[in-house]
Amino acid sequence: MSSPDDRLRQLGIELPALRPKAGNYLGYVQVGNLLYLAGQGADGWVGRLGDDLDIKAGRSAARQCMLNLLAQAQDALGSLDRIARIVKVLGLVTCTEDFRDAPIVLDAASDLLCDLFGDAGAHARSAVGVQALPLGFAVEIEMILEVAA
Amino acid sequence: MSSPDDRLRQLGIELPALRPKAGNYLGYVQVGNLLYLAGQGADGWVGRLGDDLDIKAGRSAARQCMLNLLAQAQDALGSLDRIARIVKVLGLVTCTEDFRDAPIVLDAASDLLCDLFGDAGAHARSAVGVQALPLGFAVEIEMILEVAA
Amino acid sequence: MSSPDDRLRQLGIELPALRPKAGNYLGYVQVGNLLYLAGQGADGWVGRLGDDLDIKAGRSAARQCMLNLLAQAQDALGSLDRIARIVKVLGLVTCTEDFRDAPIVLDAASDLLCDLFGDAGAHARSAVGVQALPLGFAVEIEMILEVAA
Repeated sequence: MSSPDDRLRQLGIELPALRPKAGNYLGYVQVGNLLYLAGQGADGWVGRLGDDLDIKAGRSAARQCMLNLLAQAQDALGSLDRIARIVKVLGLVTCTEDFRDAPIVLDAASDLLCDLFGDAGAHARSAVGVQALPLGFAVEIEMILEVAA
Repeated sequence: MSSPDDRLRQLGIELPALRPKAGNYLGYVQVGNLLYLAGQGADGWVGRLGDDLDIKAGRSAARQCMLNLLAQAQDALGSLDRIARIVKVLGLVTCTEDFRDAPIVLDAASDLLCDLFGDAGAHARSAVGVQALPLGFAVEIEMILEVAA
Repeated sequence: MSSPDDRLRQLGIELPALRPKAGNYLGYVQVGNLLYLAGQGADGWVGRLGDDLDIKAGRSAARQCMLNLLAQAQDALGSLDRIARIVKVLGLVTCTEDFRDAPIVLDAASDLLCDLFGDAGAHARSAVGVQALPLGFAVEIEMILEVAA
């Protein structure tokens, strides 16, 4: 299989610029071989699933969150090829009380990981529907990666 | 003290079948000696604490979430006896805005860990009341375990 | 730069007594060089950001949550000087559906970490606005630390 950086090129994906931080924190911290990525939203995707945003919009937001996370990982590691494994994803979706489809929204982010990393992109995940996210974001995702030795 | 697998038998507990995944993710990923378990809900326990579900129902849901997590751990490791330590639990409870008792709900899951693992079952935990969970689940729990060397 | 314990004294900060636990869990668990701290609220800061609590009150709550976390870390390690690095913070803010300023609230906790630990206090963070927290807390924070070898 192609390397993740090769796959990015094959799929015509260009990682976005690093988003400005919305507070006094870092985009990532590495300890041992674990890289902890801070939660990333997606600019332009503001609102609530089940109300003013539909599933398709939510999936676009989730995919953009993941691209923002991968841009942070590239900044941390120099190349996505240094990622040994995607370990854990926490997906937060701003939604109404009766919204049940956070997994469908977040699959857009998880699918991208599998497209880029193959088996190493398969990950544990939790999905949560929340009251509100910073800056009104519809979706926010945080992630833990294993870095190659 | 008896081993966790012995304790399961003594308590007459049979771990449930693995739940079907509600999305493109894995039930667990191990990195080094840490096993990250994806969030598990409890089928049949749908609703909102403080509204259509009472504390007793919430506790049943939380206990079932933990059994679902332990079934994943057994699938990952072959036996619960390979668990060195329960490290961290994150408990999510769908609830009304004035619900304050997520800890009482989640104690049903934490009590089960202590019954099965003794001192090694004591764990750090955070409890959160949320807007909505996947599939309408009343409770969702994710967990990090330390695997014996 | 001064050590974190020295900085506490210079800033006239006395760490609070350990809060009583609101359930069957531990304040912290260490595995390898990672210390997982259970979520801490702040007694006396009950309510909802965007409704009965303003940003200033939320920031006071967030700072107090962090002091409660550092008290747990001191209990775990004997001294804050044994902390090699602040790794990851998860900040939960009880809020209304239109509240967007969780990062401003949580910066009060993050600023304290940077004041005490300097570069080693800079951390990855996620911020979430939630429906309800245990005991009605306005803010709850959990944290992962790297312990010095």
